Amino acid sequence: MVDSSRSLHQRHTRAIGQKAGLPPGTLVHVGEQHMERTNIHRIQYDAERFHEERELSPEACFPIPPDQGVTWIRVCGLHQVEAVEAVGKALNLHPLLLEDILNTGQRPKAEDYGDTLFLVMKAHALDAESGEIVTEQVSLVLAKDLVVTFHEKENGLLRPVLERLRTGHARIRRLGADYLAYVILDAVVDRHFVVLEQLGEQLGGLDDELMKEPDSRTLQRIHRLRSELIYLRKSVWPLREAVSTLERNETGLIMDATQIYLRDAYDHTARAIDTLETYRDVVAGMMEIYMSVISNRINEVMKVLTVFASIFIPLTFLVGVYGMNFEHMPELHMRYGYFYLWGFMFAATGGMLYYFRRKKWL
Amino acid sequence: MVDSSRSLHQRHTRAIGQKAGLPPGTLVHVGEQHMERTNIHRIQYDAERFHEERELSPEACFPIPPDQGVTWIRVCGLHQVEAVEAVGKALNLHPLLLEDILNTGQRPKAEDYGDTLFLVMKAHALDAESGEIVTEQVSLVLAKDLVVTFHEKENGLLRPVLERLRTGHARIRRLGADYLAYVILDAVVDRHFVVLEQLGEQLGGLDDELMKEPDSRTLQRIHRLRSELIYLRKSVWPLREAVSTLERNETGLIMDATQIYLRDAYDHTARAIDTLETYRDVVAGMMEIYMSVISNRINEVMKVLTVFASIFIPLTFLVGVYGMNFEHMPELHMRYGYFYLWGFMFAATGGMLYYFRRKKWL
Amino acid sequence: MVDSSRSLHQRHTRAIGQKAGLPPGTLVHVGEQHMERTNIHRIQYDAERFHEERELSPEACFPIPPDQGVTWIRVCGLHQVEAVEAVGKALNLHPLLLEDILNTGQRPKAEDYGDTLFLVMKAHALDAESGEIVTEQVSLVLAKDLVVTFHEKENGLLRPVLERLRTGHARIRRLGADYLAYVILDAVVDRHFVVLEQLGEQLGGLDDELMKEPDSRTLQRIHRLRSELIYLRKSVWPLREAVSTLERNETGLIMDATQIYLRDAYDHTARAIDTLETYRDVVAGMMEIYMSVISNRINEVMKVLTVFASIFIPLTFLVGVYGMNFEHMPELHMRYGYFYLWGFMFAATGGMLYYFRRKKWL
Amino acid sequence: MVDSSRSLHQRHTRAIGQKAGLPPGTLVHVGEQHMERTNIHRIQYDAERFHEERELSPEACFPIPPDQGVTWIRVCGLHQVEAVEAVGKALNLHPLLLEDILNTGQRPKAEDYGDTLFLVMKAHALDAESGEIVTEQVSLVLAKDLVVTFHEKENGLLRPVLERLRTGHARIRRLGADYLAYVILDAVVDRHFVVLEQLGEQLGGLDDELMKEPDSRTLQRIHRLRSELIYLRKSVWPLREAVSTLERNETGLIMDATQIYLRDAYDHTARAIDTLETYRDVVAGMMEIYMSVISNRINEVMKVLTVFASIFIPLTFLVGVYGMNFEHMPELHMRYGYFYLWGFMFAATGGMLYYFRRKKWL
Amino acid sequence: MVDSSRSLHQRHTRAIGQKAGLPPGTLVHVGEQHMERTNIHRIQYDAERFHEERELSPEACFPIPPDQGVTWIRVCGLHQVEAVEAVGKALNLHPLLLEDILNTGQRPKAEDYGDTLFLVMKAHALDAESGEIVTEQVSLVLAKDLVVTFHEKENGLLRPVLERLRTGHARIRRLGADYLAYVILDAVVDRHFVVLEQLGEQLGGLDDELMKEPDSRTLQRIHRLRSELIYLRKSVWPLREAVSTLERNETGLIMDATQIYLRDAYDHTARAIDTLETYRDVVAGMMEIYMSVISNRINEVMKVLTVFASIFIPLTFLVGVYGMNFEHMPELHMRYGYFYLWGFMFAATGGMLYYFRRKKWL
Repeated sequence: MVDSSRSLHQRHTRAIGQKAGLPPGTLVHVGEQHMERTNIHRIQYDAERFHEERELSPEACFPIPPDQGVTWIRVCGLHQVEAVEAVGKALNLHPLLLEDILNTGQRPKAEDYGDTLFLVMKAHALDAESGEIVTEQVSLVLAKDLVVTFHEKENGLLRPVLERLRTGHARIRRLGADYLAYVILDAVVDRHFVVLEQLGEQLGGLDDELMKEPDSRTLQRIHRLRSELIYLRKSVWPLREAVSTLERNETGLIMDATQIYLRDAYDHTARAIDTLETYRDVVAGMMEIYMSVISNRINEVMKVLTVFASIFIPLTFLVGVYGMNFEHMPELHMRYGYFYLWGFMFAATGGMLYYFRRKKWL
Repeated sequence: MVDSSRSLHQRHTRAIGQKAGLPPGTLVHVGEQHMERTNIHRIQYDAERFHEERELSPEACFPIPPDQGVTWIRVCGLHQVEAVEAVGKALNLHPLLLEDILNTGQRPKAEDYGDTLFLVMKAHALDAESGEIVTEQVSLVLAKDLVVTFHEKENGLLRPVLERLRTGHARIRRLGADYLAYVILDAVVDRHFVVLEQLGEQLGGLDDELMKEPDSRTLQRIHRLRSELIYLRKSVWPLREAVSTLERNETGLIMDATQIYLRDAYDHTARAIDTLETYRDVVAGMMEIYMSVISNRINEVMKVLTVFASIFIPLTFLVGVYGMNFEHMPELHMRYGYFYLWGFMFAATGGMLYYFRRKKWL
Repeated sequence: MVDSSRSLHQRHTRAIGQKAGLPPGTLVHVGEQHMERTNIHRIQYDAERFHEERELSPEACFPIPPDQGVTWIRVCGLHQVEAVEAVGKALNLHPLLLEDILNTGQRPKAEDYGDTLFLVMKAHALDAESGEIVTEQVSLVLAKDLVVTFHEKENGLLRPVLERLRTGHARIRRLGADYLAYVILDAVVDRHFVVLEQLGEQLGGLDDELMKEPDSRTLQRIHRLRSELIYLRKSVWPLREAVSTLERNETGLIMDATQIYLRDAYDHTARAIDTLETYRDVVAGMMEIYMSVISNRINEVMKVLTVFASIFIPLTFLVGVYGMNFEHMPELHMRYGYFYLWGFMFAATGGMLYYFRRKKWL
Repeated sequence: MVDSSRSLHQRHTRAIGQKAGLPPGTLVHVGEQHMERTNIHRIQYDAERFHEERELSPEACFPIPPDQGVTWIRVCGLHQVEAVEAVGKALNLHPLLLEDILNTGQRPKAEDYGDTLFLVMKAHALDAESGEIVTEQVSLVLAKDLVVTFHEKENGLLRPVLERLRTGHARIRRLGADYLAYVILDAVVDRHFVVLEQLGEQLGGLDDELMKEPDSRTLQRIHRLRSELIYLRKSVWPLREAVSTLERNETGLIMDATQIYLRDAYDHTARAIDTLETYRDVVAGMMEIYMSVISNRINEVMKVLTVFASIFIPLTFLVGVYGMNFEHMPELHMRYGYFYLWGFMFAATGGMLYYFRRKKWL
Repeated sequence: MVDSSRSLHQRHTRAIGQKAGLPPGTLVHVGEQHMERTNIHRIQYDAERFHEERELSPEACFPIPPDQGVTWIRVCGLHQVEAVEAVGKALNLHPLLLEDILNTGQRPKAEDYGDTLFLVMKAHALDAESGEIVTEQVSLVLAKDLVVTFHEKENGLLRPVLERLRTGHARIRRLGADYLAYVILDAVVDRHFVVLEQLGEQLGGLDDELMKEPDSRTLQRIHRLRSELIYLRKSVWPLREAVSTLERNETGLIMDATQIYLRDAYDHTARAIDTLETYRDVVAGMMEIYMSVISNRINEVMKVLTVFASIFIPLTFLVGVYGMNFEHMPELHMRYGYFYLWGFMFAATGGMLYYFRRKKWL
């Protein structure tokens, strides 16, 4: 529990300070190494043709064969800086853009470099085992008839997109590079809903727990869930902004037909934010409920203690009185003194029980 | 209690993640099935004529007979995707628009598709039995002389509108499709006030309870009410935005006379939001009051315990002293030792009671 | 206390949901009936002339005699819907405008109907007996040389304005209908300050109470005051917006000289909001202070209990030891055993008192 | 403490409601009387000349001798309404402007009256004795070659400005009325920093106290400081707005060279707001820390109590057992029974101490 | 701990009030003296040439030798006001600009003085020993082919920039003064990430501590960290604004190629703010968790106490009963009375343990 809690901050913040002091535009990979070497896949298609080449080196990949419709280059694995740099050079990308691709601690953003559009996204997944959110940075460059995506590792995020491309009759084959870029964006945005749904289930579970039998582990779970939501929020809000920037770009790279799709993607990020904020409100309320439940319990325990103590402490005093060894204690010599005392004690106890009941402590 | 609490999250969030991985524009129904089959009603009217056909199939419904004034098509039941798709094709609606109609996890919004306006709304009702908010998605497409509404189920929401249409002399018969769209919007917005009024009554009841005799069920009720308000909020805020988008649309579908009505609808959503936010503030305050009341009680219980213990514990010690069996204890042999002791104990008790009273503990 | 607390929500929210299902523009009075029948007063004045007619019927009131300078029509009592409707017809007012006048659950707003300006305001007063805020809706229609005001009941709010009108030489007589409208608005805005001042006094009293001897009634008062502020806020914020809308209107009904006065009214509403928000912050702080004070007290009580118990419980054990009846207990037969024990007990008590004092518990 | 706490609200809110019901533009002094009679000082200067006249009557002050460079008229003491009115008439000021000058409950603001600019400011000072914030309203009218300032009392706020004017070679002598107005504004803004610095010192002291030995007086101090910050905030935020209004005015009264200085003043108010908000955040945190510290202490006290009670209560029971007077109790007759019992009791105590230590309660 | 806590406020606020009463534009150094005397370094470079002169006096530094490419003047140490003034005169800087340079309590800002751009920044570092944030103000003036930076002390912040300049082939040598200004800004912005990363590590450590064994030092650490974040926030938010002002400046001093870099710097400040706000949210949550943990513990301790007391108090009463000295107590004379009593006591204890276990207190 504790270990994974620490890694929560580590998972989300990366080594954000390690690049300080280096000149701007210096290409350094910030993040973990997930693959042995950088793989490049090149896909070229139009409505009729589809051509795919895997595990290319940068040299083999460029120059791109012309007149092949839309080209999609996938670069998987970012730790081999020189490979990424070679791709950047071949495509004439701005050094700052390459720097952002390699530094996986970016916030989602869209930038307009005149003839290219640059988009940084965060793809989330909930790790099945640990229940933690795992984040991968996906960068996308859109140019004329060209989409380049950069991934930290080979993962299944875009497999459905690839499958649809391979299927000849899908709409995606008939449309341009801008539509492909949208489809990739849409895949990343949809991932948020998967994660949110899983978090929503955790929320429902916590709500049950809270009403039944909350204990200190409930508190830890609330704390974890809240922290996850805080970090998730950090990457969802800027994504909305980024999609909005895409929509309003003036490069001419995005066609009118695709604009409607982008508006839809914007709408989806807005929904994700709504859900996230709602969850945050709910979790904040849970914290207060938890505190109230604990206070309630202390109150319950206090009442029992008070009732016990208030009844028996005076009685104990009383029997102590008649345990004293004074020579002259008239009551001790009364015939039914012992039984009178029992009678008195029962009466006193009854009176106190009545009093406590009236005070609603029993 | 617990079950319905879980369903709170389920009711409000739907299966938001289940569509991830599908291509954009894929038509999948997200939501529960409420009806056996999809029903289509077609109403055509102008100031003089009124024509109504029920339970049509999509084939029978289209093409729409021309020159019949305003046409209103009601599609009830969304799980038969092919029926909805047929309607969409007949009316030439954008695939994304159809996708939004079928996915009942939408947030309220208005979208401008050039020659059509698209409006998604959420109609709320408080279930009489469970006291829970039940939500239904209502989608509306406004085109020239045409309104199409999509409902999850056959319900009474728009019955009053139908009744007025059937009555020949109502104003609604003399005005166009845009006014009909407004009237439907107005019916949905007014529903918010019904729900808010009921929640307001719950609020008043809780306030009473809080001042009288709050217990852990009060806490659960506050928690429930707050959660309901949080989820309700999620659908009211975007509705205001949507109405504002409608007002500012540039399709020419909405005439000037109807603009004033839209402004009124906007005003109503603003009032609903005001009321909702006010309730949220009040409920947040209740939570704090609850905590204070519990703390107050702990304090009360503590005081009683302390008074009892502080008085009797020293006395018990004292009688213990004279219960000891030392051979040489001069007090035991005093003539009135026992009575002196009682005198001393009464005096001590009186002094302590005085002290506690001065400290306001009694 | 409890009853008035419930009525707090009732007073402020009115029956907001009761109109759902009715066609837009349906005239229904929402609110309490304060008067037996609707009274109409007609005042006409210019710098030289002043003419006043009381208790007119709608038929007698209209048409308005022409060329009499500025006309002010006061309609008091809104439950006679037909009377209000007759006024509306005579003045050719929009149905939605009339609907808003009759529905006393409106939020303050200003609307531009082309040739008329419509203003809804809330006049507040603190009921002398119950200390509760009483709210009345005042609607105002400004047209060329005409002001119409609608009141829920005959009340003293505008008496000073009437008095000034009757006095011949007041500035108000020389200026137009727009200035009259402003003067009425100003009277309503000033009412906020009266209420705020009274709430401020309550606040000061609560602050004293909090520092002296807060108890559960203090808590109830804080809760009440906070609720009042929350509801008051709901009607002050939109008023500022409404005044701003008035200022920026383009009907030409408001002359430049009056603009400066409107700016002043805007400034006043801004001040009212500032004061309100400040009070809200102060009250929020009070809640926390209250909690701290209670916690402090629990702490105090705990300390006393702990000191008592910690001192006497061990001593009681000790005297219990020497009350045992073992045959062989050497101490019991010592010559000064009893006195040694007392000595030891005094020493132990002294040591513990010293320890507690060092721990700052005494 | 309590008295000054009440006066906190009184000091900051003035009698805000007392003007309700009076016609707009009625001149009534709202505030305390600080001086016996209203004093008017007139200063005229340019780069070469400097002429100063003190304690003038309104009649002696006007008309202003022409061609004397910049004229600065200081009006000290506002309770003599007729004197202020005479100044207003001589300068042809708008009645609303005069009303604002006399009503010392204004919020800071800047208003453009075409040929004059009107500025209301709040000058703060921390009273040396009571440690309370004392507020004075300073109003300023800027016209062509003329600055008029209105003060509640003769005070030292502008003495440094006067001194600089008297010194012949200061920059202020070479610049126009707009620069003089800026210098006065700057003096008022700088006052905020003096007060903020003193509050910052209080904050530092409180922070120390909180970490060392917080008690209920600490709580009162936090409460006071927070209230002071809340009220201070009420006058700093609008001041920034006012300075911004000045900067953007279109009267031509403020020359380009002075614009840069106004931007600097704007920057200073922004800094004051930053500092204020930071303090507010810090104080809010302190409140929570205080609560935690109290909870911690309750916990500490509880532990001691529990340890004592848990150890001695069972032992007391045990010795009670052997104090019973049954005829047949074998242990009592054992040779070393008494010592065995002591042995057992030591062992039990040791075991419990070990248990508590493992639970970290000791 | 306490001392450094006080210095927290001192470190962050400087003597903000000490300049009140001085004329605007008065040059006074506000801040600590870090160096013996003010040093001026002059660097001149273009793609081919590089010339550096150290420890110049203002007289030796100016006039700047012409036609040497870009000139960078570093002024280290601000307490020698006359030296800074001499630099200001030589470069014809506005007095307000010089005042801001000397007053190290500025908030970050960018100002446009027509032919020069002025930028105030805050460079942060976490002191290795005390773990406190140390702040230094860096001011930058950008003119045609000229950058002047003002530092409080000689420090290593810009050493990497200097190194790169000395290396002949770096990109920085080929670009203009605007790029140099950007590089300096970038170095300051990157510092934020270093500090944030270190604070993030503290956060992770606190999170562990909170889940394991929080005590009052944990509370102090949370308090400190929160205060540090509050003060840090005060200087990061305005920096973003400042960078944005730079981007939108209209002086023509910043070339298009550098604009992209500025956008990147803006992006970095946005990331820093995101991270900061996230940390603030996390720390706020920690505070609540801490409170819950303490409440949990009180609850635990209360339960143990209650169980002990509730079991032994009645038993002690019972044995007290049979320790009484009444003459007539039948039980005392029963053959197995003593053993019956033990049996009863065991049974009672068992019953209570069962009850407590069912209540989940054990």
